[in-house]
Amino acid sequence: MENIKVSITEIEGGVCAPSGFTANGVHCGLRRNKKRPDLAMIFCEVPCKTAAVYTQNKVKGAPIHVTRANIANGIAQAVIVNSGNANTCNPDGEEKAAAMCKLAADALSISPTDVVVASTGIIGEPLPIEPIEKAIPKLKAGLSVSGNEKAREAILTTDLIKKEIAVSFTIGGAECKMGGMAKGSGMIHPNMATMLCFMTSDVAISHELVQKALSAVTVETFNMVSVDGDTSTNDMAVVLCSGKAGNKEITSENSEEFKIFQAALHFIMRYLSREIARDGEGATKLLECNVKGAADTASARLIAKSVITSSLFKCAMFGKDPNWGRILCAVGYSGGEVDVEAVEVELSSVGGAFTVCKNGRGTGYDHEIAKCVLAAGEIHINIKLSDGDACATAWGCDFTYDYVKINAAYHT
Amino acid sequence: MENIKVSITEIEGGVCAPSGFTANGVHCGLRRNKKRPDLAMIFCEVPCKTAAVYTQNKVKGAPIHVTRANIANGIAQAVIVNSGNANTCNPDGEEKAAAMCKLAADALSISPTDVVVASTGIIGEPLPIEPIEKAIPKLKAGLSVSGNEKAREAILTTDLIKKEIAVSFTIGGAECKMGGMAKGSGMIHPNMATMLCFMTSDVAISHELVQKALSAVTVETFNMVSVDGDTSTNDMAVVLCSGKAGNKEITSENSEEFKIFQAALHFIMRYLSREIARDGEGATKLLECNVKGAADTASARLIAKSVITSSLFKCAMFGKDPNWGRILCAVGYSGGEVDVEAVEVELSSVGGAFTVCKNGRGTGYDHEIAKCVLAAGEIHINIKLSDGDACATAWGCDFTYDYVKINAAYHT
Repeated sequence: MENIKVSITEIEGGVCAPSGFTANGVHCGLRRNKKRPDLAMIFCEVPCKTAAVYTQNKVKGAPIHVTRANIANGIAQAVIVNSGNANTCNPDGEEKAAAMCKLAADALSISPTDVVVASTGIIGEPLPIEPIEKAIPKLKAGLSVSGNEKAREAILTTDLIKKEIAVSFTIGGAECKMGGMAKGSGMIHPNMATMLCFMTSDVAISHELVQKALSAVTVETFNMVSVDGDTSTNDMAVVLCSGKAGNKEITSENSEEFKIFQAALHFIMRYLSREIARDGEGATKLLECNVKGAADTASARLIAKSVITSSLFKCAMFGKDPNWGRILCAVGYSGGEVDVEAVEVELSSVGGAFTVCKNGRGTGYDHEIAKCVLAAGEIHINIKLSDGDACATAWGCDFTYDYVKINAAYHT
Repeated sequence: MENIKVSITEIEGGVCAPSGFTANGVHCGLRRNKKRPDLAMIFCEVPCKTAAVYTQNKVKGAPIHVTRANIANGIAQAVIVNSGNANTCNPDGEEKAAAMCKLAADALSISPTDVVVASTGIIGEPLPIEPIEKAIPKLKAGLSVSGNEKAREAILTTDLIKKEIAVSFTIGGAECKMGGMAKGSGMIHPNMATMLCFMTSDVAISHELVQKALSAVTVETFNMVSVDGDTSTNDMAVVLCSGKAGNKEITSENSEEFKIFQAALHFIMRYLSREIARDGEGATKLLECNVKGAADTASARLIAKSVITSSLFKCAMFGKDPNWGRILCAVGYSGGEVDVEAVEVELSSVGGAFTVCKNGRGTGYDHEIAKCVLAAGEIHINIKLSDGDACATAWGCDFTYDYVKINAAYHT
């Protein structure tokens, strides 16, 4: 997917960077902290070719059902999102999600079926619609091309850092842009889609191809992130494409233009995946596991995810402890095809690199170098297998006191 | 499996309760703490019909390979176990495990191939054989019918409580006994066998039927425990039957006698499963998830295990917080067949009971009752489905600061 040579430049502006989009975020009262915005809107001046991926959890948030129906025709023009309440497992969930669409649509003079709705927060508490209703006029009035800054704040829950990016690139001579924002810190173990992520672009492209690109890139990015092994009920990633960049509409999957679009999407989603893992609840370290030489891609992915999901290994990383037996253990129970007698493991960071294991056996290592490597904020676990040519990368974070603290006290 | 009416009485003596067995435990030096024994032996005066189950992790400790070969003929007469070092992922692992068997066998004047060997502790550090060699005479000399107390100590690692039980029952007029001891506190997520568990009995039974009973009971007990989702490399559960109780040898799977044997084994293994979960690293609470009305047994087990494995729910239990949305979430991603619109969830303990959810929707509950229920040391999560008649039970524990502390500092 990255085998195409394409020039992608990071720019400012997040979801408002692409032509046609404005956004805003306000505090409506769903979150107790009055300083934090909790309601976000993204609006495009024209209807957009739209695609989405959703959680594979059988328990799905009401907004997912409503959004899925709304964008069944591949078209959306606005996004409304609240934090502080997941609107999930409530008797009136879909009714409330539909009401959010109607409120947004009326304010924007568009059809409610052209609205993407999402919610994040506590599961199983009825969503009060009044605070949203009251805030809509202000939310709409404040829409602007610099509103991405408030919008990206409003979708966060336990997140500590904003997760936003935008890029520019060229398709057929036209300058194109793509932007994205995400939330996600706990209940992160994507299986199909993940967390909340809203992406915008001004590329002209059919909605079928937006879906194809999104689904393909999700498998290599959002589906390879785990913070705590819990797959949320409300995961959703959406891309809206305004078509205002001026390129000739992309309609062929085999075209160079589609590959460029997909490469840009990969750049954005890989960046956001890493930021979500880095900002995992309580995390002090970003972990990246790179598996090479696997029998097949499925095995490579299982192994990479197994390592970054292991509670024991995550604790060891918090303790700056090269307890590589836990890596081997996680490789062994991953379910992937693997010759465990041929596993090689290296740990690396900006502080250097050291090999802990060759042919499935400990090699011994320099404890001073290990200390230096594991002091860094981003640790790479590089696993070399001898089973084939497949590779995969997964992202996670360490397991800390603060994860327990945050999640023992989240509700009450 | 429990549908047979059989009188099982708890007795003292652990693995030494059945006729023919002695045991001992000493400190040989593999653990730094000199007060803690780290080498255990169980000996039977006659060869025993023996069966075992092992970890499904592809990375297996060297002792597992050696034990598997030794008891391929269904016979063993002694067990030697060390804590402090797993003897796993080392170049000379099998050599060392075989040496342990030889040392034990020579001291006991039996064949090395009649010895079960097991190790638990850090993975990937070479096992020093000298401390074991030096300690063997003392270990052997101290074998006694009250040696179960030292043996059960010597197999522990991060465990805080001893895990031991013995029972008596009658088969065909003969008084029979069965005893067991286990270790297991972290890296607990069994898949086939689990942790270390050594069981003894004086029942006369063919080794094929010991294996049948052990495999069947493992599925309902040890395979339904999770502390942290990590399946160890060294899991092993073994049963040795001396045949000295005087009953007519059990050779038919359909006999009443076999059912009694299996019921006793189930009693022992269920008890040890619960104790392992209760003593999970850092745990303050035992969690028991009972699923009823599932479409099939596989689904019931997936759902029960998913709930007690959820990091988020485990943190909520530590916080005494009835965050039932996390239960529904775990049901949804379990992979089990389930109509999520018909899920009913009740939380109960010695403090009372309260329903949090019916038909997949929140019911509201009395916060005072909830407080009372969740203050207890053992919490039951009772999940009623409307998909069929299958049921399952799984055991786990809450997730606490101490789990992180223990595992961030385990190695160094």
